[in-house]
Amino acid sequence: MKPSLLTALKNRLRRRNLDAVLISQPHNRRYLSGFSALDHGIEETAGVLLIPRRGTPQLITDSRFALAARAEAPTFEVIIHRKGLIPCLKKLCQDQQIRRCGFESHYTLHATADKLAKMAKHIDMELVALTDLVEKMRICKDEAEQTKIEQAVLLNEEVFQEVFAQLRPGLSEIEVALLIENSMRRKGAERPSFDTIVAAGPNSAQPHAVPGLRPIQAGEPLVIDMGLILAGYCSDMTRTVVLGEPDHKTKEIIRLVRQAQQAGMAAVRAGVTGKEVDEAARSIIRDAGYGDNFGHGLGHGVGLAVHEAPGLSPRYKKKLKPGMVVTVEPGIYIEGWGGVRLENMVVVEEDGCRLLNRDTTFIDI
Amino acid sequence: MKPSLLTALKNRLRRRNLDAVLISQPHNRRYLSGFSALDHGIEETAGVLLIPRRGTPQLITDSRFALAARAEAPTFEVIIHRKGLIPCLKKLCQDQQIRRCGFESHYTLHATADKLAKMAKHIDMELVALTDLVEKMRICKDEAEQTKIEQAVLLNEEVFQEVFAQLRPGLSEIEVALLIENSMRRKGAERPSFDTIVAAGPNSAQPHAVPGLRPIQAGEPLVIDMGLILAGYCSDMTRTVVLGEPDHKTKEIIRLVRQAQQAGMAAVRAGVTGKEVDEAARSIIRDAGYGDNFGHGLGHGVGLAVHEAPGLSPRYKKKLKPGMVVTVEPGIYIEGWGGVRLENMVVVEEDGCRLLNRDTTFIDI
Repeated sequence: MKPSLLTALKNRLRRRNLDAVLISQPHNRRYLSGFSALDHGIEETAGVLLIPRRGTPQLITDSRFALAARAEAPTFEVIIHRKGLIPCLKKLCQDQQIRRCGFESHYTLHATADKLAKMAKHIDMELVALTDLVEKMRICKDEAEQTKIEQAVLLNEEVFQEVFAQLRPGLSEIEVALLIENSMRRKGAERPSFDTIVAAGPNSAQPHAVPGLRPIQAGEPLVIDMGLILAGYCSDMTRTVVLGEPDHKTKEIIRLVRQAQQAGMAAVRAGVTGKEVDEAARSIIRDAGYGDNFGHGLGHGVGLAVHEAPGLSPRYKKKLKPGMVVTVEPGIYIEGWGGVRLENMVVVEEDGCRLLNRDTTFIDI
Repeated sequence: MKPSLLTALKNRLRRRNLDAVLISQPHNRRYLSGFSALDHGIEETAGVLLIPRRGTPQLITDSRFALAARAEAPTFEVIIHRKGLIPCLKKLCQDQQIRRCGFESHYTLHATADKLAKMAKHIDMELVALTDLVEKMRICKDEAEQTKIEQAVLLNEEVFQEVFAQLRPGLSEIEVALLIENSMRRKGAERPSFDTIVAAGPNSAQPHAVPGLRPIQAGEPLVIDMGLILAGYCSDMTRTVVLGEPDHKTKEIIRLVRQAQQAGMAAVRAGVTGKEVDEAARSIIRDAGYGDNFGHGLGHGVGLAVHEAPGLSPRYKKKLKPGMVVTVEPGIYIEGWGGVRLENMVVVEEDGCRLLNRDTTFIDI
């Protein structure tokens, strides 16, 4: 744990009059400790952090993760629970005289919170439900984090280019998705940051299409939305390409989406709201008569999670800050015909934004 | 929803004096409705079921899933929420005069339960936390389910044999895992039921090893633990193989594990406890002096989830019933040397069990 992070977190605990906080959300756990294990679903946690306002932060896990925990979280005291997590927490809280302890309401099951509450009552400790204590710390990325995200974006583009060179009509969407995911793993990504979307022709009219077995045809739009995780941080990129010569309509729509994307990127800077950036891109699509064909928000934050705050959407009225990393991804979806989406990632800066992508495939046609 | 399932569920609601139940757990949702969508994490549900004791069961989802919901859950009324799930539920509960409604405490976030509680208070509805209402229904598999599980097991073996034929020293664990997962998808599996384990030599001493880049050597134990999902149901199978000629020690340990597995399978029948079955296998390993090298339970239930009740372990003291499907997977793990695990799946019957596996690779050496 970086000393600056620990200080920032302890300040937050002090402001809320908490003696300690329990961290169970896997991204928050990794952000604060470096411990990279994944939960086997929320029902089977790989471990929790207990961070007291005074004293050493603790990582409580089970024997399966002992080696990894010690290697990855050297600034934490690693505690292996053998008779269940809650009895172990009980003893730790008691020994450290924790009277008021926060927990992550948004990543604790109701059934688990019930058990925690019974334990807390037993040792006369007050439990305080928190929702975004650490998420708020994660929203602006420091330089080291920006570098990691940029590396994930560049590796993503390398994978895309490797697969793009192999595309030909007749391959199925699933085959292309497998080429992409295999290339990611061979090139050292931890895993895809979401299920790869490869959607051709009519299937591309669904923003969240699932790849199928239908062969890709020449001339139709082919949406490839792919992301990977590298050193914990995510990339997220969409390209819409056409095998063979795109027809007039396809070209027109790609140009329109690209124009909206450029307007969106031009609007990104510290101090404007997510809603304002969304509107800068959306108005272009709306003015061209496709307002009803752009049903999702313009973008979202990316970091340890592939979807995180802030949002670029009509609903997000907070101001952007330097160091936020967001996608800019307008799209137009026409039932029966298909869809076009273009997605880049940018870092918010004081006077504009810094584009993390280099790849320009089919962007300017 | 099969009429018999609906009747069984409504009986359970009546016994608990509930007017309705909300189902959010994805396997339970699929079990009752057929709706196969996955949540994007527990924070982003693909939909919930509202099943009233009287009246039509309802599936509430958002527009992304409208087509799939109507196709997959024809006996449910599909309701698309547009302004959030909880406002939609509020109206539905009010309109149907639901006074006491169960919810799944073990798959509802504390933060979500908080919002549900506020909503319920507003309409004077009582919320009742449940933990295993549907899980208890899922534990015994009917004939149609047993057939689906058997098909998943047989496809799993087909994949294993395809990849086994390609194994050679020098391939990395990751390469073998990719061969397996690609073959699964090409052969029509929905996805792997868990991250494929391919662990050679010293790495195989960890029951939950993660595949790495080290080349597999001739003569060392190679543990392949793989499962897939077909039509919603899971397979789970482990084989330990050796490329080239196994040495004396390896043969001895494979034989011992196989003997323990056979004793375990011979002990499975309705009316015995999970603990008794575990002990039948464990005692053989213990008597041979390897008791400390078999740290996990002998097996677990398999169905829509790859790990579900019952357990075959020292802690599981309930009796097995006909129609339960369990793994039988003893193992011996020796730090620095490696490990051997053999895993089959069986259906519990009145007088014994029915083996679902046909594959015997390296089982009798």
